[in-house]
Parts: sequence; C-alpha cells; structure tokens
Amino acid sequence: MKFTRFMVGQDSLAGVLEGETIREIKGDIFTSWTYTGNVFSLGEVKLLAPLEPNQVIGIGANYVAKTEDLPSDLPAIPVFFFKPTSSVIGPEDEIVIPEGIEQVKFESELAVVIGKEARNVAEEDVLDYVFGYTVGNDVTAPQFFREDGHWTIGKSFDTFTPLGPVIETELDPDTVRVEAKLNGVEKQNSPTELMIISLRKMVSYLTNVMTLKPGDVILTGSPLGAEMVNAGDSIECEIKEIGILRNSFVTTKSHVS
Amino acid sequence: MKFTRFMVGQDSLAGVLEGETIREIKGDIFTSWTYTGNVFSLGEVKLLAPLEPNQVIGIGANYVAKTEDLPSDLPAIPVFFFKPTSSVIGPEDEIVIPEGIEQVKFESELAVVIGKEARNVAEEDVLDYVFGYTVGNDVTAPQFFREDGHWTIGKSFDTFTPLGPVIETELDPDTVRVEAKLNGVEKQNSPTELMIISLRKMVSYLTNVMTLKPGDVILTGSPLGAEMVNAGDSIECEIKEIGILRNSFVTTKSHVS
Repeated sequence: MKFTRFMVGQDSLAGVLEGETIREIKGDIFTSWTYTGNVFSLGEVKLLAPLEPNQVIGIGANYVAKTEDLPSDLPAIPVFFFKPTSSVIGPEDEIVIPEGIEQVKFESELAVVIGKEARNVAEEDVLDYVFGYTVGNDVTAPQFFREDGHWTIGKSFDTFTPLGPVIETELDPDTVRVEAKLNGVEKQNSPTELMIISLRKMVSYLTNVMTLKPGDVILTGSPLGAEMVNAGDSIECEIKEIGILRNSFVTTKSHVS
Repeated sequence: MKFTRFMVGQDSLAGVLEGETIREIKGDIFTSWTYTGNVFSLGEVKLLAPLEPNQVIGIGANYVAKTEDLPSDLPAIPVFFFKPTSSVIGPEDEIVIPEGIEQVKFESELAVVIGKEARNVAEEDVLDYVFGYTVGNDVTAPQFFREDGHWTIGKSFDTFTPLGPVIETELDPDTVRVEAKLNGVEKQNSPTELMIISLRKMVSYLTNVMTLKPGDVILTGSPLGAEMVNAGDSIECEIKEIGILRNSFVTTKSHVS
C-alpha cells in the first residue's frame, strides 16, 4: 500500500495511491484511518513529502562497492546524525544551495518510517516496528562540516531532506536497489545488501539508545557514487518498488544577479 | 509569567505557576490559551518538563572561565548538535546511566524556547522570536562519543535532557547566572556573559541555516565545572529567576545485582 500526502488547491490531504489514482484518507496512518470516498487523479495534485516526520536520523558512509568489501568488524559506535524536520521537502520541490557556496551533494537513500514506539528491539524483531519505506535524498553541504567531525550544520539547511514520493508498506528492504540519476545519467545503483550496518542492526542499535516513535524516519545511508552538483542540475533518487523522488537544485534568490 | 506542565493523577495538564499555586490553562501556549478556572497547589502535583519540544538543539563548549578569556575570533561554524525529543524528562525524574558504563556528565544550561517561526533573523531581533527560557541539563556520555567527533549517540540516550521546572517568559537572558550543585556542593556558577557565542548570535546563526519553529529548544551551552557523576548522585541545575531543576542518577535495572 502506497501512502501519500498531496495538495489540492490550498488543502493538504492524505491518501493511498493506486496506479494513477489517489483515494483520499482521513486519520492517523500509524493508528487508525478511513477512506473519505474522495478520489483524485495523480495528475491533478501536487505531491508533498509522504509524512511530516517526528524526527529524521541519518547514518554516515554506510555502503561498500561490492559484497567482498563488507567489513567483518562493525564500528562500535556508528556515525549517526539528526537532520531537522524543517529540512524536509517533497517531490519536485527545489533544493536551495545555501548562500556562499556553489555546490552541494546528493545522496539517494532507502528511508525507514517507524510505525510503533520502539525501545530495546532485537534485530530479528525490527521489521515489526517499521510502518513502511520511502526514498530520501540526504542533501549535504560538506563545506559546512567542521574539520573536527561535527556535521550538523552541513546537513541541516532548509530543503536538504527531500522525501517521497510515497510510503510503501509492502516492501522487502533486503531485495531493493537504491539508485540515483543526475540529469538523466545514472550515478548510484546498489542493492541494500551492500550496507555495512544492516537496516535491522542500525534500527536495533538506535532503539537501545533512544525510544523511537511513530513518524521517526531513518535514512539508511547512500551507495557509492554521490557527487557534488550545481544550480540547474536535476536529481532523481529512485527505488523501483517505491517510485522516483525528483528535485532540482537552485541558488538562493540573493545569488541571482 | 511561569508556564508549567504537570500531572494530577493520570492527567497531564498545563498551567501558570504563581507562588505555590498553579492556575490551569488550556490551549497552545504559543498562540492562544485561556485559564480553565481550576487551581492546584504546587505540592499536590508532579511537575513535567514544561513543554514537549519540537526539536532540541545544543551547542558545544560555549563558556569561558572569565571575561578576559573571551576570544575575539568566533568559530566560522559553531559546534551544534541535536538531541532527540525522546531524551526529554522533567524535574525529579531519574536520569538513567546507560548499560555498560558507570558515569555520565551533567551540564547545567540556559534553554531558549522559540515561540515563533524564525528564518533569517538578525541578532538584534532574536529576542522577538523567543517565547521564554527554562533550565536544561545536557546529560552526556562521553564514552559514546566517536573519536572522529560525532557526538550523536553520547547525547541521545533516553532521560538525557531534563528540562524545567518552568518556562519563564519575563527573563533578561543577559543578566542571569547558570548554576549547578552536585549533592549540594556548587560545581557551576557563571553569568551568561561568559558565553563564547552569545544567545543572539547562536539563534541568528541557526535561523540562517534552518527555519526554527515554535517549541524548538536551544541549549545555550554549559559553564565550566561540569563533572562526571555516578548512580546515587543528585544534581540541581539552577537559574534563580527560573527555578531549580533537580534529578538523580540511577543505573539501568539490568545493572542492579
């Protein structure tokens, strides 16, 4: 089932996507919802990020190039970071390159949406707490990373976390590929089995630190191939079973001469 | 005006504290609220964290020992970090030392509560966007800091962000002192003028990166004197004009032999 949020005129609505049709729903997707009876054509709406996340958590450098490169020893403390919810945008929204820099980096990722409060969850039980999956683009401005390792600012600018196009609830996260096309040219295309810290391991680890809540989004890391991009570039992040998350890059208005 | 949240039986309520009396309120403290007419005595309720933050943002190592030590050059990119909202607890709640370690660090801080959406705010206008102030304890497990500078896990454990006892809306943040007493012995006591990056500067900087929202909490850094503590210790973080935020440290149940 593909959950979506969308705009019709000035109204922000939620729905279930079936082919080219969106059936509007009301309620909380994590607890209780019903169909309203209203139906929209995909072509007549503007898609939004498929949820307003409670929190967004990312993991650093989590893919190898090939199975043989997977390390036998995992890091004792993985590199996790938070991105502010204010950085979330939807499909086709513009990613704004911050003032003072020319380029930012795209990172196509499988994004996990937590559906139930999760604390001290064993790896084998993790999927019971997952509501579904969407595609995330963990846009990053490495120029705003501190040399001593603090990434917060470089990950936090408004528009730096495109999510979408839908939350797919019936995905097998072990069998999908994470792809990205820059201006139509393939740059990333890796199966999720190339994750260094597996989805189950990372979610289990997090739940042993903090209580995850419905609506928490975990960006599971980006395959090799992410690049710096400029204003005017267009990025398509894709997981075939979920859809294409397309956004273009622009400069801030103050940069337009 | 001192805003508070509190439990009476199983009910979580909000109110305004006047002396030893809490006048219950209903509504959204940031937009519109009214008195319900119900009144409680402070002694008959359990205080909660005075808000459920939208996000919690902290700043690293932000105090000097004396005015003469204030640097003339500020860091180009300050050390900011996020703490999960799941780490927030209230006055008198227990701070749980994570399994596998013996000690954690307390850090008494002035916490800013944002009241209005804030984007690209100039330093001189920052206070217009501040709803009020509370006391925060940025509890930290340095053992879970990565050597390459990523602090996320060491700051994120459940119970690691005590806030309270109230949000004081009529504070002059430039004239207060941030104090901490460990088991009754003073450990921290500095005026906010010893901040390296001033409150106005840090909030202005953040709003030039991300849109701050009502309910965002910014922990403005901790004075010199924070220490590692053990289970059984009791910490009082205090700003006289706001109140005392007292919590004690315990081990996880699995540690009790």
